[in-house]
Amino acid sequence: MADYQLYCFGESGNAYKAALMLTLTNLDWEPVFVDFFNGETRNPGYREHVNEMGEAPVLKHGSIKLSQSGVILDYLAEQSGQFSAQDDDHRREIWRWILFDNHKFTSYLATLRFLTTFAESADTAVLSFLRGRAEGALGIVDKHLATQPFMTGDTVTIADLSMCAYLFYEDELGLSLKPYANVLSWLHRIRSLPGWQHPYDLMPTSRRDTR
Amino acid sequence: MADYQLYCFGESGNAYKAALMLTLTNLDWEPVFVDFFNGETRNPGYREHVNEMGEAPVLKHGSIKLSQSGVILDYLAEQSGQFSAQDDDHRREIWRWILFDNHKFTSYLATLRFLTTFAESADTAVLSFLRGRAEGALGIVDKHLATQPFMTGDTVTIADLSMCAYLFYEDELGLSLKPYANVLSWLHRIRSLPGWQHPYDLMPTSRRDTR
Repeated sequence: MADYQLYCFGESGNAYKAALMLTLTNLDWEPVFVDFFNGETRNPGYREHVNEMGEAPVLKHGSIKLSQSGVILDYLAEQSGQFSAQDDDHRREIWRWILFDNHKFTSYLATLRFLTTFAESADTAVLSFLRGRAEGALGIVDKHLATQPFMTGDTVTIADLSMCAYLFYEDELGLSLKPYANVLSWLHRIRSLPGWQHPYDLMPTSRRDTR
Repeated sequence: MADYQLYCFGESGNAYKAALMLTLTNLDWEPVFVDFFNGETRNPGYREHVNEMGEAPVLKHGSIKLSQSGVILDYLAEQSGQFSAQDDDHRREIWRWILFDNHKFTSYLATLRFLTTFAESADTAVLSFLRGRAEGALGIVDKHLATQPFMTGDTVTIADLSMCAYLFYEDELGLSLKPYANVLSWLHRIRSLPGWQHPYDLMPTSRRDTR
């Protein structure tokens, strides 16, 4: 058994945040497939034994079980000593962007993508609402990246790995990234990191036709 | 000048998270009014000099300037030694709920309330979408609180102060908290903390008619 077990599935950008971190840091890990599209995260058993929040990812490491991608990233940064903060100010700057990601960036991007690509149907007004919010957040990030290569400065950290995740599902997002040139350059820099892999190459999926 | 300046306004539950923490810990603070309803957070000057994310709250403490309520709460827990983690496991558990709050709880509750109470008009399908998401998150929290008095155990922490904030705007939420008996008991416990105050009593507002 590998040191780390990651409960995940290929379509989950939140799981990808952890999977990408595990891969880039060369930690010994294995995926545990979560059959989200057949309702596994909604099952009482999953909620009772894996994650009461009904979400992926969940990371197991010995007796430690963690959920919420931000907590997992922070834990893996501690464990690996990579993509981590240089001092207290930097640590707060990293958390600032991880929180922004959860509140305004991933939250709208992921929900827009889900309704666009995976839901049976979606109300046009809801899609439009989510797209507007996601574009607003993308504009803030694009401006922020105009003067520095990564979200918290010159080096890549877990803040970048958190924020980039959903953007690699490019053709599923329900919006275009073309207006955000700095975001596209930043994604290129992350994609160029040694060992980078696309979410569908890193985690199992039940949907063979997604790529 | 007080030790801490909090950029805030009475209607902001995210600002209230910080204001409540400052008050309960008896730190020396003063509010700096942000005129959100007249567009202050959308002004280029605010984005350049106060917060590029275009949000409140922002906390200033000497040369340190922080945004994102989760970062501010964590910083004030460090500064005051109150409402903080007992060990590493507890710290991760606190962050797990602060992240859940940002991603699934405050995010939907705050947006539903904003569209219900402050927006000129809102699409019914969007309100229904947000209400469904908020109720799902409330159900998870209500179940979690069935077996313990506070979000991370027997003692109140910054996770509770983060998650409770919007729920004190009871009649503005656009949903009823009645189905969530454990949440209501938890709110009563927080309301009973020495020094607790309602957001509209703690922070300035431009809308005199909100209460």
